[in-house]
Amino acid sequence: MAERVVLKGDSLTLKDFVRIARDKVAVEISDEAMERIEAGRRLVYEFMDSDIPVYGFNRGVGWNKDRKVVAKYYEEYNKNLIYAHCVGVKPEATEEVVRATLLARLSTFLVGCTGIQPEIVVLYKEMLNQNILPVIPERGSVGQGDITCLSHIGLAIMGEGEVNYRGARMKAEDAFKEAGLKPIVLGPKDGLAIVSSNALVTGTGALLVQDIEDLIDIADIIYALSMEGFKGNVSPLDESAYKVRPQRGQCHSAKKVRSYLEGSYLWLPNVTEALQDPLCFRGSCQVHGSVRDALEFVKEYLLLQLNTSEDNPCMLLEEKRMIPCSNYEITTLALGFEMLGLALSHLSKNSCYRTIKLSNPYFTGLSRFLTPADTSVIAFGTIQKTFTSLDTENRHLSNPVTADYFSLAGDIEDHASNGTIIVQKTAKIVDNIRYILGIEALHAVQAIDLRRADRLGRGTKAAYEVIRNEIPFLDRDRNLSIDIQRSYEIIKSGEILKAVTMLSKGSNQ
Amino acid sequence: MAERVVLKGDSLTLKDFVRIARDKVAVEISDEAMERIEAGRRLVYEFMDSDIPVYGFNRGVGWNKDRKVVAKYYEEYNKNLIYAHCVGVKPEATEEVVRATLLARLSTFLVGCTGIQPEIVVLYKEMLNQNILPVIPERGSVGQGDITCLSHIGLAIMGEGEVNYRGARMKAEDAFKEAGLKPIVLGPKDGLAIVSSNALVTGTGALLVQDIEDLIDIADIIYALSMEGFKGNVSPLDESAYKVRPQRGQCHSAKKVRSYLEGSYLWLPNVTEALQDPLCFRGSCQVHGSVRDALEFVKEYLLLQLNTSEDNPCMLLEEKRMIPCSNYEITTLALGFEMLGLALSHLSKNSCYRTIKLSNPYFTGLSRFLTPADTSVIAFGTIQKTFTSLDTENRHLSNPVTADYFSLAGDIEDHASNGTIIVQKTAKIVDNIRYILGIEALHAVQAIDLRRADRLGRGTKAAYEVIRNEIPFLDRDRNLSIDIQRSYEIIKSGEILKAVTMLSKGSNQ
Amino acid sequence: MAERVVLKGDSLTLKDFVRIARDKVAVEISDEAMERIEAGRRLVYEFMDSDIPVYGFNRGVGWNKDRKVVAKYYEEYNKNLIYAHCVGVKPEATEEVVRATLLARLSTFLVGCTGIQPEIVVLYKEMLNQNILPVIPERGSVGQGDITCLSHIGLAIMGEGEVNYRGARMKAEDAFKEAGLKPIVLGPKDGLAIVSSNALVTGTGALLVQDIEDLIDIADIIYALSMEGFKGNVSPLDESAYKVRPQRGQCHSAKKVRSYLEGSYLWLPNVTEALQDPLCFRGSCQVHGSVRDALEFVKEYLLLQLNTSEDNPCMLLEEKRMIPCSNYEITTLALGFEMLGLALSHLSKNSCYRTIKLSNPYFTGLSRFLTPADTSVIAFGTIQKTFTSLDTENRHLSNPVTADYFSLAGDIEDHASNGTIIVQKTAKIVDNIRYILGIEALHAVQAIDLRRADRLGRGTKAAYEVIRNEIPFLDRDRNLSIDIQRSYEIIKSGEILKAVTMLSKGSNQ
Amino acid sequence: MAERVVLKGDSLTLKDFVRIARDKVAVEISDEAMERIEAGRRLVYEFMDSDIPVYGFNRGVGWNKDRKVVAKYYEEYNKNLIYAHCVGVKPEATEEVVRATLLARLSTFLVGCTGIQPEIVVLYKEMLNQNILPVIPERGSVGQGDITCLSHIGLAIMGEGEVNYRGARMKAEDAFKEAGLKPIVLGPKDGLAIVSSNALVTGTGALLVQDIEDLIDIADIIYALSMEGFKGNVSPLDESAYKVRPQRGQCHSAKKVRSYLEGSYLWLPNVTEALQDPLCFRGSCQVHGSVRDALEFVKEYLLLQLNTSEDNPCMLLEEKRMIPCSNYEITTLALGFEMLGLALSHLSKNSCYRTIKLSNPYFTGLSRFLTPADTSVIAFGTIQKTFTSLDTENRHLSNPVTADYFSLAGDIEDHASNGTIIVQKTAKIVDNIRYILGIEALHAVQAIDLRRADRLGRGTKAAYEVIRNEIPFLDRDRNLSIDIQRSYEIIKSGEILKAVTMLSKGSNQ
Repeated sequence: MAERVVLKGDSLTLKDFVRIARDKVAVEISDEAMERIEAGRRLVYEFMDSDIPVYGFNRGVGWNKDRKVVAKYYEEYNKNLIYAHCVGVKPEATEEVVRATLLARLSTFLVGCTGIQPEIVVLYKEMLNQNILPVIPERGSVGQGDITCLSHIGLAIMGEGEVNYRGARMKAEDAFKEAGLKPIVLGPKDGLAIVSSNALVTGTGALLVQDIEDLIDIADIIYALSMEGFKGNVSPLDESAYKVRPQRGQCHSAKKVRSYLEGSYLWLPNVTEALQDPLCFRGSCQVHGSVRDALEFVKEYLLLQLNTSEDNPCMLLEEKRMIPCSNYEITTLALGFEMLGLALSHLSKNSCYRTIKLSNPYFTGLSRFLTPADTSVIAFGTIQKTFTSLDTENRHLSNPVTADYFSLAGDIEDHASNGTIIVQKTAKIVDNIRYILGIEALHAVQAIDLRRADRLGRGTKAAYEVIRNEIPFLDRDRNLSIDIQRSYEIIKSGEILKAVTMLSKGSNQ
Repeated sequence: MAERVVLKGDSLTLKDFVRIARDKVAVEISDEAMERIEAGRRLVYEFMDSDIPVYGFNRGVGWNKDRKVVAKYYEEYNKNLIYAHCVGVKPEATEEVVRATLLARLSTFLVGCTGIQPEIVVLYKEMLNQNILPVIPERGSVGQGDITCLSHIGLAIMGEGEVNYRGARMKAEDAFKEAGLKPIVLGPKDGLAIVSSNALVTGTGALLVQDIEDLIDIADIIYALSMEGFKGNVSPLDESAYKVRPQRGQCHSAKKVRSYLEGSYLWLPNVTEALQDPLCFRGSCQVHGSVRDALEFVKEYLLLQLNTSEDNPCMLLEEKRMIPCSNYEITTLALGFEMLGLALSHLSKNSCYRTIKLSNPYFTGLSRFLTPADTSVIAFGTIQKTFTSLDTENRHLSNPVTADYFSLAGDIEDHASNGTIIVQKTAKIVDNIRYILGIEALHAVQAIDLRRADRLGRGTKAAYEVIRNEIPFLDRDRNLSIDIQRSYEIIKSGEILKAVTMLSKGSNQ
Repeated sequence: MAERVVLKGDSLTLKDFVRIARDKVAVEISDEAMERIEAGRRLVYEFMDSDIPVYGFNRGVGWNKDRKVVAKYYEEYNKNLIYAHCVGVKPEATEEVVRATLLARLSTFLVGCTGIQPEIVVLYKEMLNQNILPVIPERGSVGQGDITCLSHIGLAIMGEGEVNYRGARMKAEDAFKEAGLKPIVLGPKDGLAIVSSNALVTGTGALLVQDIEDLIDIADIIYALSMEGFKGNVSPLDESAYKVRPQRGQCHSAKKVRSYLEGSYLWLPNVTEALQDPLCFRGSCQVHGSVRDALEFVKEYLLLQLNTSEDNPCMLLEEKRMIPCSNYEITTLALGFEMLGLALSHLSKNSCYRTIKLSNPYFTGLSRFLTPADTSVIAFGTIQKTFTSLDTENRHLSNPVTADYFSLAGDIEDHASNGTIIVQKTAKIVDNIRYILGIEALHAVQAIDLRRADRLGRGTKAAYEVIRNEIPFLDRDRNLSIDIQRSYEIIKSGEILKAVTMLSKGSNQ
Repeated sequence: MAERVVLKGDSLTLKDFVRIARDKVAVEISDEAMERIEAGRRLVYEFMDSDIPVYGFNRGVGWNKDRKVVAKYYEEYNKNLIYAHCVGVKPEATEEVVRATLLARLSTFLVGCTGIQPEIVVLYKEMLNQNILPVIPERGSVGQGDITCLSHIGLAIMGEGEVNYRGARMKAEDAFKEAGLKPIVLGPKDGLAIVSSNALVTGTGALLVQDIEDLIDIADIIYALSMEGFKGNVSPLDESAYKVRPQRGQCHSAKKVRSYLEGSYLWLPNVTEALQDPLCFRGSCQVHGSVRDALEFVKEYLLLQLNTSEDNPCMLLEEKRMIPCSNYEITTLALGFEMLGLALSHLSKNSCYRTIKLSNPYFTGLSRFLTPADTSVIAFGTIQKTFTSLDTENRHLSNPVTADYFSLAGDIEDHASNGTIIVQKTAKIVDNIRYILGIEALHAVQAIDLRRADRLGRGTKAAYEVIRNEIPFLDRDRNLSIDIQRSYEIIKSGEILKAVTMLSKGSNQ
C-alpha cells in the first residue's frame, strides 16, 4: 500500500510537509481531528440560533463588521464573500505552491478552531490526493491572511473557478465530476474559513525553508570544493576553536565541511602556506552558520504556524465560545524571513568573494582567470560581472518590506506583515544564489584541474564528479552561458546534494 | 514606398526610436555616417601597423590589458573575446528589447568613434529591417557596458548563436542564409566594439521612458475620471495658482487635466462643497508633475547617450588618435532612473489613496466600497489589499541599487552604475502601476455610475466609455480578478490613452 | 561592604551587566579565571621561544600577516599596533558605553583564550571600579572586531591617551597616578589582545537589549492606557485565544497587559460596543510580542558573545596550542539586531496608528483631536506630523547595513558584519520610539480625562498618575513641544516603568 | 556703508542667500515688494468682510477646515494656531540654519501671495539684521510645509518663545526690548502665514547645495592630488574625449582637474606606464560630474522655491482672489535631494577605492600601506576600516524616505514629501564625505612624499602645502585619529578650497 501521512493538526513536520507538497505523498486525516471538525460544526449551528454577534459569521468582515448576516442568506453571503475576495493578481502559483497552500490550510483546519463544514476539509484532502489544483494568482496579499488569493480556492470548491488537473486547465466543476467529487454549497462561516488563513505564505514558506536548508548544505559542499581549488588553509575548521565558542549554526557547518573534506590533500602536512586565508575562505562556516541560526528561528515559528490555530474569530470547542482574536498575525514569521534574506545576502557575497579569489593568481598561484593557456584563452574574465550583478540583485531583494503597509478598510486594518511578499522575494534570492554557487563551482573544479589536485575529500570528490560529468574542463573559450545554466541546474535539481549526502550516510559523520 | 528613418548618429529622437523598435519602421544609414565608419576602419588598419598599445585592440581587455594581441591572431582573439563575454543569465530579452538594443548600438556606431568594420554596421541595420533577432539573456550586466549581454549579439553575427526569425528560434547561420545575409569574420577591435556598449540599458531605457510618458498621461486621465467619481473640487486646477509657481511638470499635468475635464459637471457652480479635498486629489497634478520633472532629466541624458560616443578606447577621426577614456560611464542616467522610480512610487501611492477615498462614504457621500446594494453586495472591500500590496512592491522596487557593486577584474573595475538592473526594476514599477491605475479606474467609473453623473468632461467621457465597453457596472459580487486584469489590459494596450488623445487632437488644447 | 559582582568568564548575566555598566556596581575576578589568565600568559612566553608563526603575535596583522615580529621589538611592535589602530572618528562614547565596553572585554579575557598579560586584565577591572574611562571615538568599526575604537583603550592603558575621571578630562597618565595605578608596558600579543574584540558592539548592544526590554514593557503599559482612553475591546486579550496559539512573545505581552488592566472599567459588561477594534488596538500584544520574539533571539547570541571566546588567534590552554580561527565573527548577532530594528519599526508604527485613532471622533466618540473645547482649542491637530515623521525616521533607520562592506587589507578582509553601526542605529530607533510613545501617552490620558473614566486598572492608574503629575490636562492650546519633551523624559528615565512595576510586584501577576 | 542685499521676492541667488545666512550680510526689502505686501494686507481685510470661506483664514486648518473663525477671535485663533503647531522635537537648529530659515520665508513673503501683516515681514528682516534667532527644534516636519518647526518662530515674534541673541539664550520679549523692537499682535491669516511654508527645508537645503558645490570642487582637488600620489595616467582627462560626449557635469570636473594639474610631472612623456588605471582613478571626473548633474537639477528647483509663491491659500493680488492650491508641494525638490544623496554615495565610494589603491604596492609601486619603513611602521593599515565604515553609513543614509508617510488629519493629509528629513540626512552624507576625502588626502600627500614627486600641479601644490602645513609626514606610527580630525577640519573650513581657488583666479582657467 502506498505511503500516507496522517494529519492531526498538531504535529506536522517540515519533512512530511515537503513530501506531501512536492513528492505528492497522500494524506489522511486522523479520527480525532475529524471529530473536532464535526464538533466545531455543530457548535456553529448552535451559535446560529443565538444572538451573539460574531465577526464574519453573522456579521460582515472588515469594515462591514457592523453589518448583520441573517441565516437564510448564509449561502449567498458566503458566496459573495468569496467573489469579493477574488482579487489576486498574476503570476499564478506553481503546482507545488498550490499543493503547499492546500496542505497548510488543511493542517490548521484540524486544530479545530475554525468551525468549517467537514465536507470542505475532506475536499481539501481529496484535491491534494487527486492533485486537483485550483488556479491561484499569487500576488495581492498583505500578509495578514492571504485572503485575496485563498479566495480562488473557494471559487474552485464551489465548482466555479478553474483548476489544473491531469495536465489540463479546466473548470473546477468538470474536474470534480471526472474525479468523482462534488462541489460544495457554502454554509455559515465557510467563506471566512476559506479565505482567512495564512496558508499561501505558510505553504510557500515551508517549501522555501526546505530549499534554504538544502542551499546551505550545498554552499558548504561548494565551499569545501573551493577550498581544494584554492589550496585553502584548513586550520579554521579545527574543532577545538568551535568548542570555546559553541554557536550552533557554525558548529554544524564546520562539522559538515570537515566531513566533506575527509581524506583531502588539504590535511597533509605543509600543504597550505598562507598564515591566514582571506575571510571569504576563513569565515565561510561562520557565514553559512549564521544562515543556519536565522533559519532555526524561522523554522520554529513556521512549525508553530502549521500546527496551531490561525482563525479569527477563534472557536473554542471546550469553552463553547467563538472569540475575536489576532491569531492571524504572523509578524514574527515575517521578521524571521526578512532576517533570513539578510543572512542569505551574506552567503551570496561570501561566495562571490571566494570566486573572485579563485581567479586571482596572487592568491591561488594558478593562472589569471583560471585560463588554461595564458596568451590565447580569456576564460573566467567577464563572468565576474554575472555573479556580482546577481549579488547586487540579492542586496536589493534583501531590503525589508514588512512595515510598508497602508491603513485599510475604513481605517480598521492598520497593520500588516507583508509576509507573503517577503517569502516570495526571499525565494528569488535563493534562486539567484543557485546561479552564484553554480559559477563558484565552475571555478572550483577548474582550479582543481589546473592544480592537478588528485586527493580530494570523500564528499568533494563526489561533487567534483557530478559537475565534471556534465561540464568539461574549460580548455578554450566557449559560450559560458551554457556552462552557467548547467551548473545552476545541477544545484537546483539537488543532484549534487544527493551525490554527496548518499556518501556521508555511509560514513560515520 | 514604406516609411524609413535615416540614422545619422547625432539626431535620433525618442519618437523615432520607439517607432523603429516597436512599430518596426525600417532604418537607413546616412551617407555621411557611413563614410565616417569607413574612414574609421581605415584608421584602425593604420594603427595595426603602429606600435602604440591600444586597449582591446592590440592589447587585452579588463585585467588582461597588459597582454599583447598580435595581428595574425585578430580573428581568433576577437572570437574568444566574444565567447568569454557570453555569460548572460535568463530571462531572455523580449523582441522589442532586442530591437531597441540593436538600434541603440547602431546609433552610437554612427557617431564614428568605434572603428568597427562597416559590414557589421550594415548587418545590424539588416537584422533590424529583416527582424532577425539574436537571443539575448538580459541579466548579468553591472551597467558599465552591457558586455555580458551584448556578446550574444556577437555570437549571432558570427553565425554561431541563436536568433528568432519569422516566428521560429533557429541558428543564426540558418537565418542569415534564409535572409540572404552572410555571417561576419571578426577583425581587429570588432569584438570590443560589439560588447563594449550600453546598448541594452539604453535601448530598454528608451522604451521605458516612452512607457512612463504614456503612464503619466494615463494617470492624468484616470485622476480626472476619479475627480468626477469623487465630485472633487476643481479649484486646485486653477491656472492662476500655477502662474505664481511655474514648475514645469505640474503645469503640464494641470493643463492636460483641465482639458480632459472640459465640459464636466464639476465646473458647474456649487457642485463641490468641500473646502479642500484630501491631498491625494488636491495635489495629484503636483505629484504627476514631479514624475514629469524627473522624466525630463532622464530624457536629456538618454538622448545624449543615444547620440554621442560611448566607446573606449575612443577613435578620434580628425585627430587620427585612439584614446582611452570613460565614455562608457552612465552614472547620471542610472541616477536619473533611480529618481524616476522614487517619483513613480509617489504616483503609485497617490493613486492608492484616491482609490481608498473613492470607496469611503465619509468622503464621497456614496455607498461603502461603492456597493450597489448595501446589505447584500460587498463590492470593493477586499480589493484594497491588492493595490496596496502592489504599492508595497513598488516601495521595495524603488530602493536604490546603483552604488552596490564590487571591485572586479583584479581590482581594476571598481566602479559600476548598475544602470541595467535599475531600468529593469523601474519597468516592474511601471507594470505594477498599470494594475493600480486599472483598479482606480474601476472605482472611478463605479462611483460615476452610482452618482449618476451625466455631464462628463470631453476626455473623461471617452475614457469612461472605453472602460465601460469592456467592464460592466458592478451590480453584484463577481470574480474581480477578471475585472482587474481587463482594466490593466486597457491601460497597457494604450487603448484608453489613444481614445482620449484622439479627441484632444481635435480640440485646441 | 558594598555589593560586588564576581566575573568568571562564563556566566555573566544581562542583569549584572547592566548593574555594573550603569549603576557602577563593582567587579571582582574569580580566582579560577585569574589562574587561567596567568597560565595563558606563561604559554605565550613558551611560544615566544618556538618558531611557529602566530598571527598578530610573532607575525603582523591584516595584510602584514606575512611580516615577522622579533622578540626584542615586542614592546615597540605592540605600541605601534595600538597607534596604527587609533583611527576612530567622533562622536565619543558616553560614560555608560565606555564602561560597558570595558566590561564586555574584561569578561571575554576571563574565558582564557587570549594570552594577555594579567596586569592588563587587572587594570580593566580597576578602571571600572574607579571609573577611569578612556575616551573612545565610537565610529570607524566595520563590526569585525571593533579594532579602530578599542585601540583608544590601549592608548589609555599605556598612559598616553585621554580619560574621563572624577568629572574631568585628563591624560591617562595623570588619572592613573591620582588613582594609584600604573600604566602598562605592552608585551607580546598584548596589542592584538586589546584591539581584537567586539567589546564596543557587545557592550553597547547589551545596554540596548536592556533598553528594548524596558521599552516593550513601557509600550505594553501605554497600550493599556490607550485602551482605557479608547474604550477598547478587551476580548482580544482573552487568555484562551493565546492557548491555541502559544507564541511566546505575544503571550508574555498579553499577560502583562491583562495585569496592568486589572480592575479596569473595560472589563465591565457592555462597555465596549465595537465588534472588533482597529488592528492597532486589537493586535498590539502580537506586535509587541514579535519584538519580544526577536529580542529573545538577540539575547541568546549576546550572552554567548559575553561568555565565550572571541579571540583570534585563539589560545587553547589544555591543548597548549594557539590556533587561527574566526571566533571574532558576530554575523548572527548583527542579523539579530537588524531583525530587532524591523520589529521595532512595527511597534513604532502601531503606536502611531493608535494615537491617530485616539484623536478621531469616529472611533472614540470623543472630540476631534481630543480638544476640550471644539470651537476654540485646536489641541492635538498638528502633533500627528511629529510622531509620524519620527516613525519615518525609524523606517529609514530600520534599513539594513549588515552586508554593505568592502574588501580590505589587500583583499584579505573581505567580510564584515557592520554590527557596531547596526547597534548604534537601533539605539536611535529606540530613542525615537520614546518620543512616539510619549506622545501616545499624552493622547491616552487626555482621552481618559475627556471620557471621565474613573475606574482605571491597577497598573494603568499608576501610569496615569505619573504622567498627570507632571503634565496637566490640555485645557487650552499651549506650546506642546514642552509636553512632548516631558513625556519623553518620563519614559526615558524609567519613571513610568518603575511606578507600574512596583505595583505588580505586590500583586500575584 | 556696509554691504546689503536687496530682496525682491523673485531674484534671490544662491550666492547671496549664503552670504546673508552664513556671512550675516544685511538685507533690505525692495519698495515694490513692500508695496505688494501692503496691498495684500488690504485685500485680506476686504475678504474679512466678505462671506467666502477661506482655508486658515476664516476657516480652520487641516481637518478643522470646516470650522468657522469669526473676526473678533482672529488674535486668539491665530495664537492658538501657533501654539498647537509648536510640536517640534530636538535637536535645535544651528545659528546658520535659523538664519537660512528666516531668509527663505522672508523671500517668499515678498512674492506677494501671502496676505501677511507687513509688520511681521519687517520683523523677519530685523531679526536677520540684528541676529535675533528664534530657537527652532528641527525635527517633526513631514516636508509638506515645515509647520511643526516654523511655529516656533511664531512663538518668538509674539514675544513668547525663546531666542538666541548676543551670545545668550533669552525670552524673545527681552531680546526685542533690548533691540528696540516690538512683539507682534497676530491678525487674520498671520498664524497660517507663519507656519505654512517650507522655509526650514528650503533654507537648510540652500546651505547644503552650497556645501555640495564646494564638496565636489574639493573632491576634484583631492582626486588630482591622488593622481600625483598614484602616478596616475592623465590620458582620461584628454579634452577631446569629452567633446564627443559633452555631458555637462563631467566636462566641468575634467576642466577643473586639468587646471589643478597644470604643470604637474604627470604630463611629462613616459611617466605613466599603466595602459588603463583602475576605474576609481580613470572615471573620477565622470562620477564627480554625475554629482554635478544631479546638483544642477536640485538647484533649479531650489531657486524656484526661493523665488515663487508657496502659500496655500494663495492670494492673487491682481485678480483680487484668494484661492486654494497646492503650491506648498515640494516633491520634485525632495526627489532631487534623494538623487543627490545617491550621487554622493558614488563619490564617497570612489574616494574609498582610490584610497585603497594608494596603499597597495601592486598599483603604486610604493610601500604597503604607504609605510615609511616596512619592517617597523604599520602606517595606513587599519584606517581602511574607518573610511569604509563611514561609506557604509553613507550607503545607509542614501536610502530613500520620500514616500514613507502616513495619512493624517482625518485622512485629509495623505501625501507628504519628507523633504526636510531628506535634506537633513543628505547633510550627514556630506559631513561623512569630508572625513573620507580627508583620509584620502592623507594618503595622497604621503604617497607624493614617498614618491618624491617634485613637480606638482599649480593647484595640487597649493593643496599639498595646506595639508602638510598642519599634518607632518607619517614617519612613524602615531595616533591617527588626530590626523583624521585635522584633515577633516581643513576640508570643512574651506581652507583647502580657498587656497586652490585663489590660485586659479590668477590663472586663465
